[in-house]
Amino acid sequence: MSTHDQGVRREPVVPPAQAAPRDLAVSREQCLALDAGDPLRRFKDEFVLPEGVVYLVGNSLGALPRRAAGRVRRAVEEEWGGQLVGGWNHAGWFQQPVTVGDRLAPLIGAGPGQVVVGNTTSIAVFQAVAAALRLRPDRRVIVSDVRNFPTDHYMVQGLAGLLGGYEVRDVAEGRFDDAAVVLMAEVDYATGARHDVPATTAEVQAAGALMVWDVCHSVGAMEVDVSAADFALGCTYKYLNAGPGAPAFLYVNPRHHAAAENVLSGWNGHAEPFAFEPGYRPAEGVRRFAVGTPHVLSFAALDAVLDLWEEVPMAQVRAKSMALTSLFVDLVGDALELASPADAVARGSQVSFHHPDGYPVMRALIDRGVHGDFRAPDILRFGFAPLYVGYADVHDAAVTLLEVLDKEVWRDERYARRLAVT
Amino acid sequence: MSTHDQGVRREPVVPPAQAAPRDLAVSREQCLALDAGDPLRRFKDEFVLPEGVVYLVGNSLGALPRRAAGRVRRAVEEEWGGQLVGGWNHAGWFQQPVTVGDRLAPLIGAGPGQVVVGNTTSIAVFQAVAAALRLRPDRRVIVSDVRNFPTDHYMVQGLAGLLGGYEVRDVAEGRFDDAAVVLMAEVDYATGARHDVPATTAEVQAAGALMVWDVCHSVGAMEVDVSAADFALGCTYKYLNAGPGAPAFLYVNPRHHAAAENVLSGWNGHAEPFAFEPGYRPAEGVRRFAVGTPHVLSFAALDAVLDLWEEVPMAQVRAKSMALTSLFVDLVGDALELASPADAVARGSQVSFHHPDGYPVMRALIDRGVHGDFRAPDILRFGFAPLYVGYADVHDAAVTLLEVLDKEVWRDERYARRLAVT
Repeated sequence: MSTHDQGVRREPVVPPAQAAPRDLAVSREQCLALDAGDPLRRFKDEFVLPEGVVYLVGNSLGALPRRAAGRVRRAVEEEWGGQLVGGWNHAGWFQQPVTVGDRLAPLIGAGPGQVVVGNTTSIAVFQAVAAALRLRPDRRVIVSDVRNFPTDHYMVQGLAGLLGGYEVRDVAEGRFDDAAVVLMAEVDYATGARHDVPATTAEVQAAGALMVWDVCHSVGAMEVDVSAADFALGCTYKYLNAGPGAPAFLYVNPRHHAAAENVLSGWNGHAEPFAFEPGYRPAEGVRRFAVGTPHVLSFAALDAVLDLWEEVPMAQVRAKSMALTSLFVDLVGDALELASPADAVARGSQVSFHHPDGYPVMRALIDRGVHGDFRAPDILRFGFAPLYVGYADVHDAAVTLLEVLDKEVWRDERYARRLAVT
Repeated sequence: MSTHDQGVRREPVVPPAQAAPRDLAVSREQCLALDAGDPLRRFKDEFVLPEGVVYLVGNSLGALPRRAAGRVRRAVEEEWGGQLVGGWNHAGWFQQPVTVGDRLAPLIGAGPGQVVVGNTTSIAVFQAVAAALRLRPDRRVIVSDVRNFPTDHYMVQGLAGLLGGYEVRDVAEGRFDDAAVVLMAEVDYATGARHDVPATTAEVQAAGALMVWDVCHSVGAMEVDVSAADFALGCTYKYLNAGPGAPAFLYVNPRHHAAAENVLSGWNGHAEPFAFEPGYRPAEGVRRFAVGTPHVLSFAALDAVLDLWEEVPMAQVRAKSMALTSLFVDLVGDALELASPADAVARGSQVSFHHPDGYPVMRALIDRGVHGDFRAPDILRFGFAPLYVGYADVHDAAVTLLEVLDKEVWRDERYARRLAVT
């Protein structure tokens, strides 16, 4: 979500020759050559991208994959319209939480029968942390990261308030030895800083706590492996490109399948949903973490997108992602204070900068066709989705950003007006 | 959801002249005359209905409204594809939980600022019951209806198990004087029996408990009024026709807006979601019951459908609904044991019968183009959506049902095979 004032930019990106008084370390021509040799180049045609926009908000909402549009249309017109209630059987709707989960699993290092899809990240946080607490009834501390995207921390606060008797401790205190569960994000939504998943998981588990990873900001941008974690969760509308409000996912380590409880015990997680029994009896395996009736139209887009991901070599995605973010950091140089780690390996697929007037700066930039977003209090965020962002795009974005800063065009009062979603 | 073996029937409905050895009290010609005089007749053209099918499962999944198909396509192609992340502001996505809630409110007797849309019925049950318990901390009994659609009762069991120290009591015991909250459905999913909302609400509240109504099986089929209740919730994919897995809604009586807590405290219910504060601070009013990022594509269909509902006179819907269900009961006569109340006023918009071999009977019926569904252990269910079901449809359905029973065609072994969703 972002500072967006318009869907499509009004004017073309200012050509670099006119707009770049600075000498940049890498030329646009060099960037075009990098694009020509990019092994992922063909994927850009899979996406609908508005003319003349450099879209650097794929870390918030991914662009529309062409095949998702067709698949959603089919779900509406052929499945709902043509099969009506029969779609639950014949279009496979009822099994989607686990069938789509199985298809998504390889993207997070999980196997079949370990991932359930549905609901939202917020709900998945609640399910994972509540299940973890019930697996560690002797401990009364929940460790969460106050710097994490707020919904994770808020959901933990709500759960702790509901239960009573729990301490919610910030992960920065670094004490896990009395913790029931530790909830962290692999990549920080604001700075893009990347945590060391294997090392942290091992440390947390050695302290006797359960590890829950939020991979919202890493899945689809790098090789993610949560297989050692106890639980993991994430959304599918960022780098995975499954559309606004696409369903979330929840990984449950198989070692917990027998004992873990889904406290949101809806009928979709029941062992026999169509027996209409009076008592809840959990399904075997990860299916018990399904809750209510799946959001079929949102699943349709995700299903189509997973076809695309089957063709994508993730090691190349990560390599290009690091190259793109490094290029952007190099081109922007000292014009802005970097908020992200300087080392590409320690970053996700985004670059953030501090600026005391970040909001109008971002609005001015969007007005010139370069779409990033602003995060309070002072963060300019730029996400680089390697499937549809190229090297020349990065060059154009940097040139335009430097122009906005050098000419101080962001001081125009029309950029100060706040939009509802910033 | 249903016993469906196919999306579209294979053969035309058997013409009544050949298929009806019985003398029926009302002729097909009389039914055609009723259709000709039906003030709701024009709405049938608003829906996509497969050729030759009598669709009596609108109480499970409503048919596709033509304008929903166009609206979803626009949400995908113009909003997501064209506006990208800007859609959160410009397509109004971020406000949809409350803007769509305001549009839905009149259908349940509520006012603006009292309904939030999102998630699923299961999640809404959890939110409402948990909030009620926190408003009545001195009481430790949750009254639920074991005959209600299972997810409601299962969610209560999960919540009680999470909290500990609560008794879950069946509503049939009739004791509310020590209850914190009572959860009931206005219309029973299996039998179609309709509860007296005003009388029950008054009785429960007089006993000092809070009343939560599930209106899944009444909203869109009659004039619903939950304004005296403490909370109410329902889905939008049955009579409202908003599509498979369309978002649920939650009504919160304004007298609880200041004190009621959303224990699923996601960032969408925060007072300032884009302030990214470390602590959860609930929004004013019903917005605090929003949870995570809304499922935008599913909202799009609902939004389109609410345009349609603005044109629908609900008193006429209820009048026609009672006429249709009464006609079906009369035509089927004593060929089956009625499971629904005999008095139309005491029914929702569905008719249920008992049959020991209900499953193959329904499969045989669907094979002949009449779509109802089966509910374990022995219920044949028929839902009558007055916007697209006519009197002649009811006649054809009854004639075909009587033929299936009289000729015992359901004994064909191909109808015995169970489908996943029954």
